[in-house]
Amino acid sequence: MQRIINDPDNVVDDAIKGYLRASPSLFAATDHPRVLKYPGSPSDKVGIVTGGGSGHEPAFLGYIGDGLCDAVAIGEIFSSPTADAFLEAFRCAPHGQGVACLYGNYAGDNMNVKMARQMAEMEDIEVKTVIARDDVASAPASERDKRRGVAGEVMMWKIGGAAAARGDSLDEVIRLAQKAVDACSSIGVGLSSCTIPANGKPNFSIEPGHMELGIGHHGEPGIEVAPLTSAEAIAAAMCDPVLADQDFAGSEVAVLISGLGATPVMELNILYAHIAERLEAADIRVHRTDIGNYFTSLEMMGATLTLMKLDDELKPLLDAPARSLAITQR
Amino acid sequence: MQRIINDPDNVVDDAIKGYLRASPSLFAATDHPRVLKYPGSPSDKVGIVTGGGSGHEPAFLGYIGDGLCDAVAIGEIFSSPTADAFLEAFRCAPHGQGVACLYGNYAGDNMNVKMARQMAEMEDIEVKTVIARDDVASAPASERDKRRGVAGEVMMWKIGGAAAARGDSLDEVIRLAQKAVDACSSIGVGLSSCTIPANGKPNFSIEPGHMELGIGHHGEPGIEVAPLTSAEAIAAAMCDPVLADQDFAGSEVAVLISGLGATPVMELNILYAHIAERLEAADIRVHRTDIGNYFTSLEMMGATLTLMKLDDELKPLLDAPARSLAITQR
Repeated sequence: MQRIINDPDNVVDDAIKGYLRASPSLFAATDHPRVLKYPGSPSDKVGIVTGGGSGHEPAFLGYIGDGLCDAVAIGEIFSSPTADAFLEAFRCAPHGQGVACLYGNYAGDNMNVKMARQMAEMEDIEVKTVIARDDVASAPASERDKRRGVAGEVMMWKIGGAAAARGDSLDEVIRLAQKAVDACSSIGVGLSSCTIPANGKPNFSIEPGHMELGIGHHGEPGIEVAPLTSAEAIAAAMCDPVLADQDFAGSEVAVLISGLGATPVMELNILYAHIAERLEAADIRVHRTDIGNYFTSLEMMGATLTLMKLDDELKPLLDAPARSLAITQR
Repeated sequence: MQRIINDPDNVVDDAIKGYLRASPSLFAATDHPRVLKYPGSPSDKVGIVTGGGSGHEPAFLGYIGDGLCDAVAIGEIFSSPTADAFLEAFRCAPHGQGVACLYGNYAGDNMNVKMARQMAEMEDIEVKTVIARDDVASAPASERDKRRGVAGEVMMWKIGGAAAARGDSLDEVIRLAQKAVDACSSIGVGLSSCTIPANGKPNFSIEPGHMELGIGHHGEPGIEVAPLTSAEAIAAAMCDPVLADQDFAGSEVAVLISGLGATPVMELNILYAHIAERLEAADIRVHRTDIGNYFTSLEMMGATLTLMKLDDELKPLLDAPARSLAITQR
């Protein structure tokens, strides 16, 4: 395990120290060691909270900032934050207009957010949730409630964050964040495993010369393990289930290609050239494309594709200004 | 070799297709297949050109944009662009006020830039150069002309780009870019090797449980191969030669921590927490810190530390607005 760490059991706390030191204009400590908040949040808007396991950098802390999230609950590597952490995040976010908790569909997160909401209610903090379920490989469209949240969460934070920043009500922020993530279909492909520091051994295994289509962000099994093929064929294998998931033809879309950690960004661009060809052939217009490491899985090799169907309501929110570690746009 | 590519000999051309497709507001094709230019460059400013081998993403293309570089010459993986490519980059950048070619100290780049300058002279394009030599591990301070350029190049592009954007003359842009990179001291630590697709085998080797201090961006040998130790001890091993290189005490600095590719950003933050402590102990004030993947070496594990001594002239240029894939700030 080739890592720049101290005690493998303390990586999350040690990393938080670095984030606080490096970016005081983006991160402030709170009463909970596993909650950071944005010091620049206006108090009179709907609060945006998210949270999840660590190891997905820049998610989740990288989405704290202007026009994005106000507070983040931080879990151990690949583990949900505690209910206490979510509760403190609700308290630390602006909450006079209510709080929108926008997170991904994982059992631990669901349980802890639910408990935190109940505790928040006793403190008269109104919390509503949107649960991202954009991973088409994790369940069929008919069982969307079983799907995992993956990089579509970035779109959910961007749209929900922008709606809150312009002063939308809690119900409106929730409606738009839900619409955003419902408009997203994502899929991942994994080319190698990753190692949780506290375990010291690879989390799962992908044999050299193979790839796993539909792999989850924590190594959850995908649809198919297949021989590693060309970027062109990988693009096809990723596009087919995504394009079959929603009626994208004739629409404008936003494309998000995220590396899973160790795959060079150059390869994400090679992949995208073929994805762009397939979208064109399917009569889909690309409004914008973002390529980089937006939602990773430690040092896993591979990539995710997220396609988001746009309309006149979502487009200006996606393009609205933001400032965070992961997204800064003017 | 777990890669998302087509023909291993065509990765650079295939990646360029993706960059052009994904970011038409940042990249335009030129008459040379290995040169991209910024379509938004004003014609009446000093042109900023850079170039170098591929495999260092987001360098070099990620630094094309507003307030940064106007054209980039693109080499094969870890190889210099051709003289023809540099020449076309000079032609494509605004050049009525002259061109500042800001690149790193590698034999191939030196040779090709020199030839391209001679050819440009015959076309009445005035080109002046700054050659980054910020890697303290590659030669002692007394032989600075032998040092390699590493992540200090990012600072050189930022400062030179901002000076050109505000309308400074060629001589002034050159003076400031030179001052910027002279103010930088950098060092890398490698924890694993990387594989050039066309070779298919690791470029060099670092045994598990070991690290190489002072390693170059292409795996050039460093100062010392040592047992892999704690983040705190790695921070010390990186800070000692950097702090000994210039008189930073009592000054303000900018800190740039770049991952080499596969090291999770979480670990860069763990490392930075200890670096920040050491800077504080050395009476060095940190004006700003940027942590992420700014200058990589394919999927190498490890990190670089760059410290830049600031003054009232450099600070506003560093903080000036910019928009590119790698740096966007308002």
